[in-house]
Amino acid sequence: MKEFSPIIFKDGQLSLLDQRKLPVEENFIHCNTLEDGFKAIKDMVVRGAPCIGYSAIFSLALWLKNNKYDSKEFKKACLFLKGARPTAVNLAFEVDKVYSLCENLHDCEDENIFYKEVVEFGFLQLRESESNNRAMARFAHEELKDRYKNKKLNILTHCNTGFLACGSIGTALGVIQYLGEQKLIENVWVDETRPYLQGSRLTAYELTKLEIPHKIVVEGAASHLMSSGLVDAIFVGADRIVSNGDTANKIGTASLSIIAKYYNIPFYVVAPKSSFDIDSNSGDEIEIELRPESEITNYRDNQISPLTSEAFNPSFDITSGINITGIICEQKCLKPPYLKSIKEIFNGN
Amino acid sequence: MKEFSPIIFKDGQLSLLDQRKLPVEENFIHCNTLEDGFKAIKDMVVRGAPCIGYSAIFSLALWLKNNKYDSKEFKKACLFLKGARPTAVNLAFEVDKVYSLCENLHDCEDENIFYKEVVEFGFLQLRESESNNRAMARFAHEELKDRYKNKKLNILTHCNTGFLACGSIGTALGVIQYLGEQKLIENVWVDETRPYLQGSRLTAYELTKLEIPHKIVVEGAASHLMSSGLVDAIFVGADRIVSNGDTANKIGTASLSIIAKYYNIPFYVVAPKSSFDIDSNSGDEIEIELRPESEITNYRDNQISPLTSEAFNPSFDITSGINITGIICEQKCLKPPYLKSIKEIFNGN
Repeated sequence: MKEFSPIIFKDGQLSLLDQRKLPVEENFIHCNTLEDGFKAIKDMVVRGAPCIGYSAIFSLALWLKNNKYDSKEFKKACLFLKGARPTAVNLAFEVDKVYSLCENLHDCEDENIFYKEVVEFGFLQLRESESNNRAMARFAHEELKDRYKNKKLNILTHCNTGFLACGSIGTALGVIQYLGEQKLIENVWVDETRPYLQGSRLTAYELTKLEIPHKIVVEGAASHLMSSGLVDAIFVGADRIVSNGDTANKIGTASLSIIAKYYNIPFYVVAPKSSFDIDSNSGDEIEIELRPESEITNYRDNQISPLTSEAFNPSFDITSGINITGIICEQKCLKPPYLKSIKEIFNGN
Repeated sequence: MKEFSPIIFKDGQLSLLDQRKLPVEENFIHCNTLEDGFKAIKDMVVRGAPCIGYSAIFSLALWLKNNKYDSKEFKKACLFLKGARPTAVNLAFEVDKVYSLCENLHDCEDENIFYKEVVEFGFLQLRESESNNRAMARFAHEELKDRYKNKKLNILTHCNTGFLACGSIGTALGVIQYLGEQKLIENVWVDETRPYLQGSRLTAYELTKLEIPHKIVVEGAASHLMSSGLVDAIFVGADRIVSNGDTANKIGTASLSIIAKYYNIPFYVVAPKSSFDIDSNSGDEIEIELRPESEITNYRDNQISPLTSEAFNPSFDITSGINITGIICEQKCLKPPYLKSIKEIFNGN
């Protein structure tokens, strides 16, 4: 099992895997200044909320390496960096945390303390995420151990949930990486995940780097695979989980859960507690984002469909909680009825 | 409602819509000799078993227009034409029928009778197909009238089943064309139909020519569309229907049928009696063709996935008869239990 990270901070330099060129080109962009980091975030060298957050922390570390700490100047640097992706909540959130951290160190005598502490904070965030993901993976492993003894597993996954988006091992793909480390994987079915092809472009790349056997399939193959006995379990991530277990995730997830239920195949959602929205009562309250039609009607510069034909491109769908076997977070594998089990973990903390 | 045909025989010339360039270019190839027809069939200007059959009939008519009938020479011409697509059963079948027809005319005194009769035979086949398709469409219309009164319909379809493959109005798309003629269509959801994109390339083109409102969607959107009340009924074609109603059709069809059943949305298969294989007992007996991995890993010359990643590309799947609301053939709309209703129409003839 290979280790691979899209974010490397070493010897005062931040190196970011250029995800725009994947999987055909594997290229790192090296950042030595805040401006380099700003550009990498703005130009989408990195993607995925967690990765954008970590890149922001290390970009501010670069400013602290190159400049003497000054509260006012550092605030300007923070504001500048937030402008790289103005709508990325996670970016602003991490930048604010770094600013508070530095302000609290303000009276320190050691000039280098700011840089050192921010770098350490970045590594801490990465380690915490890794630790949370590994906890989830162990719960998943435990779930499967009861079901499939003495047998390697065929796992199906949808979209992209691994280290490219998460920096750490990831959620659904973190489970798969962990099972791979235990030599428990026979094959991973990678949904290509139309229209944006996150599966064939990114998940297949991650599994290649991890040296885990996998095959890409079209979403339409789900029934054929499951009816042929070729799927032992399904793991997907989540964009948002509401209080009854209804889960918003990449378009195609809900279809998959219904087909899995029909064939009695366990279907798991893997997501940290930060993805839960316990103030919403059901999936009906979640608005579905519509993406550009051109993602369906074109492939890069190639027109696929007639010029006058329209497309309808909802980015997410809602998987009903009643079709989910278990929701795995860093604390435990939650089981139905979710209204009760989700409430418990949030009341307990 | 526009009329449009991909096969035109007029003034002793066969004109074939070049389907390789669709939907970006709309170009007819004009054939004046048997050799022109051979080349068009071989180079896949035409596709779909029925269209290949009709093109073969008119190509032989071209030979008869250009040559004096001679049994031995005509047999050579027939053999030559069969070589254009050696594995296309329909091609050989139609060529043999034309040869028999001519041999039966052998003693006629009118030199032109061969050419005239073969042209007439070609038109007759096209008319018969159109008449069968329209009969199916009327049964579908009847089915829907009971369910949705005073309301325009939202129909979902998969793959390509219209005039491009059938010459006549087609099966599932024939139903949609007929409903369009009755001004009953609100919108057609066109599954793009990965990996070969028959939906976005061909069905969207057909609907554009027919001026029927439509929107292309990814297969993964099925649950979202159905749960949102945006689908009134689903119509698909069939490659093969066995005696218990199990149906082989383009990959993705079975998934669609399961999701439709979950949301209680009627799911119809539309296919002529020639698609029934009553000697097979269940879908388990149907072998699933595997297509090249590159259909998934590449788009034209663009590599999508990592070079070392494999894909699994089954071309068809089996929709269980128990998930089909009705199977519409030219004789009636068959209802479950199919073991009984299919047997009846074949015993009755």
